Amino acid sequence: MASGLNFLLAARRCEIGELEELAKTSELLGVLGRFTHELQRERGASNVYLGSQGGRFAAQRLEQIAQCERAAGEVRASFDRLDTDPSRVRNGARLFSRIAAVLHAMDALPALRERIAAQQLSPREATDAFVKLVAGLLAVVFEAADSATDPEVSRALVAMFNFMQGKEFAGQERAFGSLVFTSAGNDAAGQQHWRNLIDLQQGCLRVFQEFADPAALLANLSSQDPQVMADLERLRRLGCTPGRLDPDLSQAWFDCCTERIDAMRVVEAQLAANLRHLCGRRIEQARAELRDHQATLESLVRESSPAGPAHYGPHLERSVMALVQEQTLRLQAMSDELDTVRATLNERKIIERAKGLLMAHRHLSEQEAYKTLRQTAMNQNKRVLDVAEAVLAMADVLPAPAR
Amino acid sequence: MASGLNFLLAARRCEIGELEELAKTSELLGVLGRFTHELQRERGASNVYLGSQGGRFAAQRLEQIAQCERAAGEVRASFDRLDTDPSRVRNGARLFSRIAAVLHAMDALPALRERIAAQQLSPREATDAFVKLVAGLLAVVFEAADSATDPEVSRALVAMFNFMQGKEFAGQERAFGSLVFTSAGNDAAGQQHWRNLIDLQQGCLRVFQEFADPAALLANLSSQDPQVMADLERLRRLGCTPGRLDPDLSQAWFDCCTERIDAMRVVEAQLAANLRHLCGRRIEQARAELRDHQATLESLVRESSPAGPAHYGPHLERSVMALVQEQTLRLQAMSDELDTVRATLNERKIIERAKGLLMAHRHLSEQEAYKTLRQTAMNQNKRVLDVAEAVLAMADVLPAPAR
Repeated sequence: MASGLNFLLAARRCEIGELEELAKTSELLGVLGRFTHELQRERGASNVYLGSQGGRFAAQRLEQIAQCERAAGEVRASFDRLDTDPSRVRNGARLFSRIAAVLHAMDALPALRERIAAQQLSPREATDAFVKLVAGLLAVVFEAADSATDPEVSRALVAMFNFMQGKEFAGQERAFGSLVFTSAGNDAAGQQHWRNLIDLQQGCLRVFQEFADPAALLANLSSQDPQVMADLERLRRLGCTPGRLDPDLSQAWFDCCTERIDAMRVVEAQLAANLRHLCGRRIEQARAELRDHQATLESLVRESSPAGPAHYGPHLERSVMALVQEQTLRLQAMSDELDTVRATLNERKIIERAKGLLMAHRHLSEQEAYKTLRQTAMNQNKRVLDVAEAVLAMADVLPAPAR
Repeated sequence: MASGLNFLLAARRCEIGELEELAKTSELLGVLGRFTHELQRERGASNVYLGSQGGRFAAQRLEQIAQCERAAGEVRASFDRLDTDPSRVRNGARLFSRIAAVLHAMDALPALRERIAAQQLSPREATDAFVKLVAGLLAVVFEAADSATDPEVSRALVAMFNFMQGKEFAGQERAFGSLVFTSAGNDAAGQQHWRNLIDLQQGCLRVFQEFADPAALLANLSSQDPQVMADLERLRRLGCTPGRLDPDLSQAWFDCCTERIDAMRVVEAQLAANLRHLCGRRIEQARAELRDHQATLESLVRESSPAGPAHYGPHLERSVMALVQEQTLRLQAMSDELDTVRATLNERKIIERAKGLLMAHRHLSEQEAYKTLRQTAMNQNKRVLDVAEAVLAMADVLPAPAR
């Protein structure tokens, strides 16, 4: 039985170990959020620069590159500080692969910037390159959320990931809108794409609202300037109206979006700080519980075995049983709650997988694949998730992808 | 970029670390399988002993207790050898809690045996006590299967868990049938319970067949003596026929079941050996791939940077990109496959959770809760899983459990 107690305490210590690893990952996420924001700004500036044939934002773009590089330096330093010892890292295989992909994409930034400076890329090509890098950064955040074993931390991570993803769709909307206003026209396909970006934002923010704690919800609510939101909706309406657009609206659109995205960045930084705080609190809590357990068990062993540690009375017997049962029930409840939180992440995985399948089999771009899923869902009055599941169920009967 | 390569290699090393941990758990599972088998035999002997008012199997029972204690000693030794350092264990919180519960239940065995020897328990009470301990042991196997991150190993673990669980239901059927033949009669509820035990066995063996590799399937097929299976089906039919039973069939039933279960034990031991072999092979494979990676990268760095390690050419650039992409795709494919395998485990979790809910809210035993799910499924022509999901969806509107 003594070894049973040891395993009970070892299980507690492992919980603390898992929380400590989450705390370290949370530090990293704060830094990634900042870098993502700077990249989003650089994407916006590059877009205006390219759209105006280098006429506008030339200086702002260079300033923004300098900001971006500072944030990139912090990211590299954070990566370098990570413990990569395989015997001590839990989610290493997936997390480190994502980081390797991010670092590789970061190394490609200077070449991308040279081509933008020389105006060798269209705004859309430049946007796509930045979108890919940001997607890689968000994939790191997703891995962190997916590997969390504490339901409370997992909730916070799911809320944060969805907020960051929603902010990224807002950034993509800024880029796309700038393109539309600069080119002074929007066709039906463009309007559809714009509506997709709005839907995707709203979908992410709905999940955020479901999982965020009240303080985060309040921070988000109070960050939204009603005037900015009204301007945004007005410009969205104008941008999606067929016919010729006033190119002067381009600047108003960019400023309005930027104001909104910068406000989101403030909320995001607060989410990151809350997450670190939450990890710290959960670690303290788990340590206090471990101390309580140890003290209870020691006093029980003392009381029940005056003849020495080899003898345990029925009193201790019952207390240990209570502790084992409590621990089993607690882990069961945690696991159930975690499954509920993870369901959201799994939905995203299923949609991603269906997208990947469509991309491989029907030679679609990522955006086209998503559009196909979404259009099918609308036509059949189903959720995108249901269509994605149906696509995956059909995977075996699809022809092999052409090379 | 150098650090990108480092993370790529670190990710590989983490995969190897995960496989090494799985290999250790697999060793443990072999020992748990043997102990489970001895417990099942002791349960059977105790059942006959109690059912015959101590008239039969008195000596066999004592012999079997000695066998069981030897296997228990191996289990304790294996537990003691486990690394419980929280910084080095991945699934510690859940695995160690399960182990603590098992050790606690093992400590209660001597008292259980005394009460059986003194005939202070009914056969059904004794059976239930053994069933609980075996369920604890199988929960350890389930945790191991649930924490595996390699799809091939995960498949083998899911196959093994379901085979062990199916064998346990076969053992419960042996115990229940002995009871029926000894008491010389079976009522409608008893017949229903018997059918449930047969269904549960078949469900487990179906999952086993889905996930086992061809060698394991063949081993299982050739282990089944057609004569034994024919006898089993004949005795099942007799046992489920209303009316008076010949008590002499009790011995024939026990022998026939025992022969079948012992044959399953041979297959189970082979599954455990195959699992250890598979882990070893996957580790070797992953190590070879890591060495290949390292060699490729080193030669690329040498070729492309005659001026020194600080300069990388476009050739290396492209090779690294290919490696990063290959790694990402590989992990994605592994994760997809793992999700498919895990779906089976999740189904079990959902049914367990629905059972727990019914037990708490309607004060049912575990068997009654499962019967309720199963009966509802049959009435509504649905799967048990669908009914379990419906029960969980209703959880919020159920009244709070009475204390």
